[in-house]
Amino acid sequence: MPRYKLTVEYDGTEFVGWQWQANGISVQQVLEEAVAAFSGETVRVHGAGRTDAGVHARAQTCHLDLAGEARPDVLRDALNAHVRPRRVAVLAAENVADNFDARRSAKARIYRYRIVNRRAPLALDAKRAWQVSRPLDADAMALAAGQLLGRHDFSSFRASACQAPSPIKTLDALDVARDGEEIQLTARSESFLHHQVRAVVGSLVWVGEGRWTEADIADALAARDRRRAGPNAPPWGLYLEAVLY
Amino acid sequence: MPRYKLTVEYDGTEFVGWQWQANGISVQQVLEEAVAAFSGETVRVHGAGRTDAGVHARAQTCHLDLAGEARPDVLRDALNAHVRPRRVAVLAAENVADNFDARRSAKARIYRYRIVNRRAPLALDAKRAWQVSRPLDADAMALAAGQLLGRHDFSSFRASACQAPSPIKTLDALDVARDGEEIQLTARSESFLHHQVRAVVGSLVWVGEGRWTEADIADALAARDRRRAGPNAPPWGLYLEAVLY
Repeated sequence: MPRYKLTVEYDGTEFVGWQWQANGISVQQVLEEAVAAFSGETVRVHGAGRTDAGVHARAQTCHLDLAGEARPDVLRDALNAHVRPRRVAVLAAENVADNFDARRSAKARIYRYRIVNRRAPLALDAKRAWQVSRPLDADAMALAAGQLLGRHDFSSFRASACQAPSPIKTLDALDVARDGEEIQLTARSESFLHHQVRAVVGSLVWVGEGRWTEADIADALAARDRRRAGPNAPPWGLYLEAVLY
Repeated sequence: MPRYKLTVEYDGTEFVGWQWQANGISVQQVLEEAVAAFSGETVRVHGAGRTDAGVHARAQTCHLDLAGEARPDVLRDALNAHVRPRRVAVLAAENVADNFDARRSAKARIYRYRIVNRRAPLALDAKRAWQVSRPLDADAMALAAGQLLGRHDFSSFRASACQAPSPIKTLDALDVARDGEEIQLTARSESFLHHQVRAVVGSLVWVGEGRWTEADIADALAARDRRRAGPNAPPWGLYLEAVLY
């Protein structure tokens, strides 16, 4: 059976997350129903990673097998027609080898978090970024982020529901950049723990506010205890930017 | 009576435009009702310019007079509380002199138009940019844009409903820049005719598609006839970026 890789953009606002859940519509469900509408086949669409309710994707990836052949660009256009009116867009479809697995073949994931640091609420970027009123020191946040780079036990930044076999991950990049009122944090790792990026962002915002120092971030990491780090940043500022193979 | 200048961001999607209209909610109405809820005063909020239904603003400006004194930051925060849940945000409130007029005192307006040039529909930027499927040559668009710079009779790029006393305007800047799949056009003028930016963008997209040349843009301008230029680009790609004083 031919295997296809899809690259998918979505607005997470209306979804319970990537994965099927009983309590609402998931991106996975929307894609599987679109595949069925196009091909008549009931298939599983396997994602590179699960995103939580409200989390967006600029380029989630997934794979699926179809019994019938389809030209990749025809598949892309047909899925885009069938996902309407859901806020999901198939950016690309490609033929891939039978041993390609969207999750297991991935070499790295890149997430981006958008903070808008201003007093006024967000009109244009509502549900697209986290509005933080208190002035943030992005330089202090960037410095403290350095404490989290490399291979660590990230238990302090891990949801209790996390199903990963080990809390040890290698954070390859964690950049903090301010452009006017917007602060973007970009994190790169082979894989992430559940809520890892949001817990890291919530903790670094404490640094930006001056409540915490770089040393507090190091202490939180060393504690290996979720209660010792800051709160999760809200989901709507988070974007799955890319999955690298 | 103290006069205040407001800087306002809005998502134009749900509005009939800046100005009061019988057939729906306007940004002006939302602001005037918020002022009334805060101060008990029924006032007119005077905008720097009207934006059409669906057009966004990153920094529209307006002025209003209040009988009672209010600290500008208190006014800003109170209006932001009262405009909810409308997608309007007051970014700043300032005291200004009695002779400040949001429209007449303005020295220049800057509009930006966002095109996303790709095959797939927009999930994250739906109603925030114009998706154009055919590949666009942004360099050709930038070259052709040069034909429109300076002082001209822009009748070919003017809505029939335009109420400006003269079709002669001076276009000080019209930049076209591509960044990946996104093309942004930025236009600056002391003031614009009704639909001028959207008609210019629609015509330059014809150039980008290869249907028109730079010479066709010059001919369209010289014709002084709306039927000789391209169609209006859709409102949802347009942003009032700034009003300069």
